[in-house]
Amino acid sequence: MNILWLVAHPDSRSLTCSLADEGARHLTELGHEVHVRDLYAQKWDPVVAATDFDHDPTERLFVGRAAKEAYEADRLVPDIRAEQELVRAADVLVVHFPLWWFGMPAILKGWFDRVFLNGFGFGIKDPETGTTLRYGNGNLRGKRGMVVTSIGGREASFGPRGINGELEQVLFPVQHGIFHYTGMEALPPLAVYGADRATDAEYAVAAARLKERLSVLGDLEPVPFRHQDGGDYDADLVLRPHVAPGVTGLAAHER
Amino acid sequence: MNILWLVAHPDSRSLTCSLADEGARHLTELGHEVHVRDLYAQKWDPVVAATDFDHDPTERLFVGRAAKEAYEADRLVPDIRAEQELVRAADVLVVHFPLWWFGMPAILKGWFDRVFLNGFGFGIKDPETGTTLRYGNGNLRGKRGMVVTSIGGREASFGPRGINGELEQVLFPVQHGIFHYTGMEALPPLAVYGADRATDAEYAVAAARLKERLSVLGDLEPVPFRHQDGGDYDADLVLRPHVAPGVTGLAAHER
Repeated sequence: MNILWLVAHPDSRSLTCSLADEGARHLTELGHEVHVRDLYAQKWDPVVAATDFDHDPTERLFVGRAAKEAYEADRLVPDIRAEQELVRAADVLVVHFPLWWFGMPAILKGWFDRVFLNGFGFGIKDPETGTTLRYGNGNLRGKRGMVVTSIGGREASFGPRGINGELEQVLFPVQHGIFHYTGMEALPPLAVYGADRATDAEYAVAAARLKERLSVLGDLEPVPFRHQDGGDYDADLVLRPHVAPGVTGLAAHER
Repeated sequence: MNILWLVAHPDSRSLTCSLADEGARHLTELGHEVHVRDLYAQKWDPVVAATDFDHDPTERLFVGRAAKEAYEADRLVPDIRAEQELVRAADVLVVHFPLWWFGMPAILKGWFDRVFLNGFGFGIKDPETGTTLRYGNGNLRGKRGMVVTSIGGREASFGPRGINGELEQVLFPVQHGIFHYTGMEALPPLAVYGADRATDAEYAVAAARLKERLSVLGDLEPVPFRHQDGGDYDADLVLRPHVAPGVTGLAAHER
């Protein structure tokens, strides 16, 4: 498989970057092709700007519209085009980061803001039905996405009744909102807890867990999120009454 | 009141920036003191770096530790110190953005990454009990936070059974993970739907709704998130069995 591995930590000696190195080496040894994008090392610019879209600055900027026009006319700036090319070639996208304020570090969030643009990551219509493809279908269908995250807190506090919220639900904006939305299969996230005070022995355990997971990357069961066009949602994109009747909350969107 | 209004959109003529202007003017007319931080206009750098902390580059960077040391020694870079000063003086923090990939644009996410640092935004211990103050208590206790967000999708799709997830839960990382975590009261978010195709009449409705909301900013009931130290959580920060028995999911953390 072709694996695109995004990693975001300001220090290449960090637990995060060390795990990324080990993980990529392991995948290579298994015969896969791996592209590591160390966003800090490549000084990735995470800020969406009118210049990304070759946009006339005297005209008001509608980001979605401008992005789609530039994408279709092949007028996006080269750094975005290069990342899109890597995504196109990838079978699996690994998104690897320390959890900062319950989300991705800005440099990584801005990779999605700038690369997963209207026309590329979303906003594609089915030519026959005219439906906008999303949630289980879309341009990135057939690919898989997996979060690897290191967390300062302890595991119980991210459990089903833990104070931080269950990890899978805290990551819903990525798992469901990015992976599933764009048509990718969302794999269960892999978390390393207590990361900011991990001993060498704890690091070794984390690295072993990661390699074990990577060895089965192609076979892992994805999170069974419901598909937009699978019959569970009505025309307003609301769950039909007979589907998980009475259930609200993010878990309702899993089969 | 003193209101700090963060806004993040690449075009000052956007619906987002226009609403921020109108909102700030309205608050000023009501007699409040308003500081608008237009992160694009001020070219805010959202990327956490070792240089933020005056960190010795030959030493491995542990972000939390380095941030706390630099904060306590007053060695943070001036741009971070200036924002922290504004937060200290504020009674209300308005966080205003277009919802991109179900979260904040990178330039805004990186405002929290860089400003809400260990020692300032979190990581403060109660001097008597030694407990780390968070979730209902902390350095920013007594302040209120409110999200104002513009969204391309339609309202039903962000309802309790909408495909995008209920807005309040999609925003859990901000509402609970930033506001409540740091001790602030999280106010209900205000959303403008269908924002990328709003007519002038729809814009006027949105502006009126915003002003109405701002007029009662000091009186709004916050989201009743449970406090870490209110007796509902055990020592592992897990809900005790008798609290919302059997309930999982993010809503379990509201009283």
